[in-house]
Amino acid sequence: MVKPIPVLEVFGPTIQGEGMVIGQKTMFVRTGGCDYRCSWCDSAFTWDGTGKSEALQPEEIINRLDALAPSQYKHVTISGGNPLLHQGIAQLIEQLNERGIKTAVETQGSLWQDWLLAVDDVTISPKPPSSGMKTDWDKLDYFIDTLEPSQLSLKVVVFDEIDYAYAKDVHKRYPTTSLYLQVGNEDTTTGDQNRLLTQLLDRYEQLINWTMEDTEMNYVRVLPQLHTLLWGNKRGV
Amino acid sequence: MVKPIPVLEVFGPTIQGEGMVIGQKTMFVRTGGCDYRCSWCDSAFTWDGTGKSEALQPEEIINRLDALAPSQYKHVTISGGNPLLHQGIAQLIEQLNERGIKTAVETQGSLWQDWLLAVDDVTISPKPPSSGMKTDWDKLDYFIDTLEPSQLSLKVVVFDEIDYAYAKDVHKRYPTTSLYLQVGNEDTTTGDQNRLLTQLLDRYEQLINWTMEDTEMNYVRVLPQLHTLLWGNKRGV
Repeated sequence: MVKPIPVLEVFGPTIQGEGMVIGQKTMFVRTGGCDYRCSWCDSAFTWDGTGKSEALQPEEIINRLDALAPSQYKHVTISGGNPLLHQGIAQLIEQLNERGIKTAVETQGSLWQDWLLAVDDVTISPKPPSSGMKTDWDKLDYFIDTLEPSQLSLKVVVFDEIDYAYAKDVHKRYPTTSLYLQVGNEDTTTGDQNRLLTQLLDRYEQLINWTMEDTEMNYVRVLPQLHTLLWGNKRGV
Repeated sequence: MVKPIPVLEVFGPTIQGEGMVIGQKTMFVRTGGCDYRCSWCDSAFTWDGTGKSEALQPEEIINRLDALAPSQYKHVTISGGNPLLHQGIAQLIEQLNERGIKTAVETQGSLWQDWLLAVDDVTISPKPPSSGMKTDWDKLDYFIDTLEPSQLSLKVVVFDEIDYAYAKDVHKRYPTTSLYLQVGNEDTTTGDQNRLLTQLLDRYEQLINWTMEDTEMNYVRVLPQLHTLLWGNKRGV
C-alpha cells in the first residue's frame, strides 16, 4: 500500500488537446490539489474545494482505466492540479510502464519528484504574469537540467503581451528546450461555443503573428487547445 | 552548380499546420512536379500545369528565404508536389544544416533520395484509396527501415471509412512508427470560411470518435490541419 492518490476524474479515451503530444489518443487521470492558484485556471475545481476527490491506490486507478477502455489505450496523461504533490504516482507510472503504456505529466515545475524521470512526455508549464503566480527560476533550472531533452518540453500559456514577453524570457533562459506557446482561453465558463471558437481562433492568429514577426522566437511551436475548439468548456472530454 | 530545383512558392514565416511538427514556426519551399495525381490534392497546381515554377539553385532559394525573413527562421519545410523528384535538394539541405537550420520534408514514400537521411523531420504520407493512387508497400518498407525512428513519422489523410481501414493497415504493418491521422479537406476551393470551419471540425470529431472506439488504434495521434481552420483554402500562408 502506498500513500493513496487523491483523484478527481478518470476519463477517456480522448485526444490530448495541447502541447508536445497534441492529438495523441490518451486516457486522463486528474489529481486533486495544487500549490498554485492561477487566476485563469481552467480546472480550479482541483484546488478550490468545489471538486470532490477519492483517495485511490495505483491499482484502483488502473482498474478504472481498464473498465473505461478495455484494450483501448496505450497512453495515460496524469494531470491536475499539480500531480507532483503526490508521491504515490511513482507506483502508478511504474505499473503503467510495465504494461507497455506510455505516460505524460504536466506540471508548473514548482515541486520535484523522482518519479518524473520515468515519465515519457513531461510538459513543464511555468505560469506567466497574468496567472498572478511567481516563477521560481532555480526550481525550473533543476527540472530542465535533470530531465532528458527528449522527454521534456516547456509550454507557456499566453493571454497578453506581458505574458508573451515572459515566454521570451523562458526561451532565452532555455534556448535548446522545445517551447510551445499556447493561446489562453479567456472565457472558461461560456456555453456559447460559436463565439468561443471565433474568439479562440482570432487570438490564436494574433499569437502566431507576434511569433512570426519576432526575430528572437524562431525555434518555437504555436498551438491552440484542440479540445476547446472542438468541445468548448465541456469537462471530461 | 547542381541541377536546379523547380520552385513554385517560397513563403513564410508561418506555422506548420499539420503532422509531426504541427505548430512549428517554419518557412516553406514548395517544389514543382509530382509522380502522383491524388484526386483531392490541395496543391494540384504543382503538377497539373497551372503553376509556373522557376529553376533555382540552392543558394538562390536560401537568398529568397533570407529576404523574406531576415534572422527570423530556424526551420524550413520542403513541400511539393513530391520533393523527392529533385536531387539538387541535397545541397539545399546541406547548406541549411550548416547554418543550424532544421528541415522537414513531406513525401508519399514512392521515390527515394539519400538526402532524406539528413532531414530532421520526415513525414511519409502514403495515400489512401480515396486518392485514386496505389501504394507500393515495398518502397514504403524501405523508407521505414532506412530512416531513423526519431526523424520519421507516418501520416494518413482520412476522408471516409475505407481510408480509415487503410490507415489501420499502415499501423499494423509499421506498429512502432509514429502515426498521425489527419482529417481530409473535402472542399479545397470554397471561400465560405465559416461553413468550411464547421465542416472540418465535424469531420475531425468523427475521426476522433472512430479512433477512440478502436481497440487496434491506440498509439496514434489525430490532428486537423490548423492552417485550414485559420485561413481556409488561402494559398501562401
